[in-house]
Amino acid sequence: MGARALIYEGGGRFAVSDASPVAPGVGEVRLDVAYCGICGTDLHIAHGAMDARIPTPMVIGHEMSGTVAAVGDGVDTVRPGDHVVVRPLDTRESTPADRGFSHIGRKLRFIGIDSPGALQASWTVPAFTLHALPPDVDLRLAALAEPLAVACHDVRRSELGAGENALVIGGGPIGTLISLVARSRGARVLVVEPDGARRALARELGFEAFEPEDDLTAALGELGAEVVFEVSGSAGGILAATKHAAIRGRVVVVAIFPEPRPVALFDLFWKELDLRGARVYEPEDFEAAIALLVGDSLGLERLISAVEPLDRVPAVFDELRAGRLAMKILVDCRP
Amino acid sequence: MGARALIYEGGGRFAVSDASPVAPGVGEVRLDVAYCGICGTDLHIAHGAMDARIPTPMVIGHEMSGTVAAVGDGVDTVRPGDHVVVRPLDTRESTPADRGFSHIGRKLRFIGIDSPGALQASWTVPAFTLHALPPDVDLRLAALAEPLAVACHDVRRSELGAGENALVIGGGPIGTLISLVARSRGARVLVVEPDGARRALARELGFEAFEPEDDLTAALGELGAEVVFEVSGSAGGILAATKHAAIRGRVVVVAIFPEPRPVALFDLFWKELDLRGARVYEPEDFEAAIALLVGDSLGLERLISAVEPLDRVPAVFDELRAGRLAMKILVDCRP
Repeated sequence: MGARALIYEGGGRFAVSDASPVAPGVGEVRLDVAYCGICGTDLHIAHGAMDARIPTPMVIGHEMSGTVAAVGDGVDTVRPGDHVVVRPLDTRESTPADRGFSHIGRKLRFIGIDSPGALQASWTVPAFTLHALPPDVDLRLAALAEPLAVACHDVRRSELGAGENALVIGGGPIGTLISLVARSRGARVLVVEPDGARRALARELGFEAFEPEDDLTAALGELGAEVVFEVSGSAGGILAATKHAAIRGRVVVVAIFPEPRPVALFDLFWKELDLRGARVYEPEDFEAAIALLVGDSLGLERLISAVEPLDRVPAVFDELRAGRLAMKILVDCRP
Repeated sequence: MGARALIYEGGGRFAVSDASPVAPGVGEVRLDVAYCGICGTDLHIAHGAMDARIPTPMVIGHEMSGTVAAVGDGVDTVRPGDHVVVRPLDTRESTPADRGFSHIGRKLRFIGIDSPGALQASWTVPAFTLHALPPDVDLRLAALAEPLAVACHDVRRSELGAGENALVIGGGPIGTLISLVARSRGARVLVVEPDGARRALARELGFEAFEPEDDLTAALGELGAEVVFEVSGSAGGILAATKHAAIRGRVVVVAIFPEPRPVALFDLFWKELDLRGARVYEPEDFEAAIALLVGDSLGLERLISAVEPLDRVPAVFDELRAGRLAMKILVDCRP
């Protein structure tokens, strides 16, 4: 019997069809996927912008939760029935130039972009990518573990301390998750976001929210922000990031800037700032994310905009391309 | 009797005249200045570029060595006859926004720019600015303590480890001092410098030296440079800095970029780089510099291009403005 799967065919085209479940080989695990979130990267793929990288036709998706269905030889870390999430990084090929940072290694392969992903009912992955979920974590919420691990990584890179000001520039899904994690670490969080609906959500979640034109200097005082997260990817955002950073502040660059952009290097020099790149996550970031999922301590339920059936995903991508607003859409991948 | 002093009059004009020695007040020390180096900032002043900041007429200069001539009340850290150097930072006004980083505090005053400097035979300064020299450190060499402390600060900010590749972009006085300090910490040092004479000096000092157009990727291998120092202040330099940095490499921005400049933020993200500003020095950097002066372990004698008498300094500035090439010119301030 086939399992439903969303196939990306290239050129922005998708199809849903039945695929044969892949029996797990040595060191592999076959999962029954429960939920899979739609990420900005998936939308980027749906725009055809990553066709040069993706070996089409291929299943995409990488923000998932599920249950172990079968384990291959040599797997003793999980058992059928376990609830798990996947850290979608294939780190098996390492090079000395990686300097031990396998999550950003030169030959890193991202599962769901470089190899088949999670938007299917049955998914077979290497066992080392799995993180077990405590039994009381809801599988819907657990589909947020991957983007939450991104936020945990970003906050860890910032070395944020309790009582510090954290300025989050960009209030989309990742910016909001960063804000929630930063607050859970004891920070005062200020969010800058041009979109009114996203700003309203930030306020609803209890954050101070500002338009880019607002007087942040008044809000932050002479001190500034000990930590800034640049999540907007905008020209104004990266300039504001160094402007509002405190002396010896840390600015974490989360957004992807495809081309070189003007940075106020004078601020960097004058205040001895630290501008840090942050990309994906390390295993401990997934563990931190899972710990935050228990009892939904962050109130993430509020971020789930909709749960859609797998068969409707091609239409959902059309809707998103047409401007449908959403914080996080989950796909129910169960048969 | 007056003591000779170089007076900056504004508009790029200098005069040498006799000034009355200032008796040391409470907590102050009067020094007989021995040597004072001419710094890029002094040349900037000589171009009239800092007239808005400098309270003219005023003595400038801040890279000095000397002997304690007299101490004011309450000074018990030095005695007449001691050899000393001055850390020219007036850190007495601190604010909470400084977060304890007094060397880059909001109300920091730089002695020799914001208040009278060292290009005079007799100079009175707060005792807390002094660092005592071991008796066997030559006073000519000791005039290099201040720029060497800059280099020690930059290398400390980089967290350079033994065996790492250090790429130094810009082979002027500060770049050369950084190269020497980095090598003393066990790094392999590669210098990029467009000027042939400076490149030749770098090679003479034992460094691998390159033109900006050379194939640095071949020289550094797939690993890249764990640490990069951007000392050129050029558009190409800051782009090369992130390009050649290793995964999780540290890029220390030493040069002053007055305006925002394009930075390859994609490199920052992709390799999780750390771009750090570095400005002046902290007391421990002066102590590290003084330790390196003992026995001239770095071979700094080779960097002293000339020793000029104080009376000739206005002419020396004219020569420098006209293109005279020099690594480091010292001024003999003794009567």
